[in-house]
Amino acid sequence: MNEIESSALPPRGPAEHAIREQIVAAAEQHFSRYGYEKTTVSDLAKSIGFSKAYIYKFFDSKQAIGEAICSKTLSAIIAAVEEAVAGATTPTEKFRRMFKALTTTSVSLFFNDRKLYDIAASAAGEGWPSARGYAQRIRQILADIVREGRETGEFERKTPLDETVHAIYLVVQPYANPLLLQHNLDLVEAAPVQLSNLVLRSLAP
Amino acid sequence: MNEIESSALPPRGPAEHAIREQIVAAAEQHFSRYGYEKTTVSDLAKSIGFSKAYIYKFFDSKQAIGEAICSKTLSAIIAAVEEAVAGATTPTEKFRRMFKALTTTSVSLFFNDRKLYDIAASAAGEGWPSARGYAQRIRQILADIVREGRETGEFERKTPLDETVHAIYLVVQPYANPLLLQHNLDLVEAAPVQLSNLVLRSLAP
Repeated sequence: MNEIESSALPPRGPAEHAIREQIVAAAEQHFSRYGYEKTTVSDLAKSIGFSKAYIYKFFDSKQAIGEAICSKTLSAIIAAVEEAVAGATTPTEKFRRMFKALTTTSVSLFFNDRKLYDIAASAAGEGWPSARGYAQRIRQILADIVREGRETGEFERKTPLDETVHAIYLVVQPYANPLLLQHNLDLVEAAPVQLSNLVLRSLAP
Repeated sequence: MNEIESSALPPRGPAEHAIREQIVAAAEQHFSRYGYEKTTVSDLAKSIGFSKAYIYKFFDSKQAIGEAICSKTLSAIIAAVEEAVAGATTPTEKFRRMFKALTTTSVSLFFNDRKLYDIAASAAGEGWPSARGYAQRIRQILADIVREGRETGEFERKTPLDETVHAIYLVVQPYANPLLLQHNLDLVEAAPVQLSNLVLRSLAP
């Protein structure tokens, strides 16, 4: 799977790639201790032992570093969802597993250790490229499942595909967007199953 | 329609009722200017020109005053929803209007003038009786519509009623709960229609 698009500058060679990774790893630790919003690039530079100017050689801004971290996390969620889907044989089962994996992995990455929530919330709230890429990928996976179900005759074909996929995305979104998910944490066990059942009833031919 | 249950002390007579209303109206103004979270009962007493002790004769706590305001607002939303439902003839149309009225009225009361959001968010986040009563009433209205649709043969009858109603409630809830709704404000025009279509497909016999 490709990494989700990030607004950070592209890596230019193996050595620079290693330094970028070092900055991202250090930033992740620093953000987890002090929070993303409260940290400045100066704080970060000081804690890594680099000059601020040196960090700016690799990243345009604090957001670009946040983007790199966020992009890694969202890619991990997509990977978990893709793995769950790949393990299922029917489109019905693929949808169920997708919803479950999406919720479980999001909760575990955003909330179990709280460190990434702050960054993911900024990404979702401000429409960062990584968050937009993530939403697009989720829609794409949904579209693939619905299309397959229509081809096998498991799902109805009367409703325009785009309309069906968009409406299902709206049902799933409160469990994939960390800003909404934070208020749904008491529902994450049962809701994906209950909502999957409703969505699958709506897809019946 | 009954006022949604509130934890405030019940009114004890016409004169006391008038004073309670006066305190609530003054509190509403005060909260709208300074915010619910930041205001204390002392601030409130000072601004109304009552003693703190006198206010405590009518309300147990700041939350009890907030509850009274919240209860009024949530009752207004329920009234708008009930009016919308009453204007429709078929269960299908009732559901569509219910979802639309719920979202529109919630946005207008919680967000158009921001003054009530703060209180409603506390109510929803902390599970105040008014918020719980509101959620119950929404479920009740949903259950009535689904039951009627089953009786007229417009909706399917295989799925247990409770299961159907609960799943639909989960679909509606991000547009009825102010904590979730604040992140969905860009969706409030289109989403109720798109989600109503999905829910109605799931209800097809």
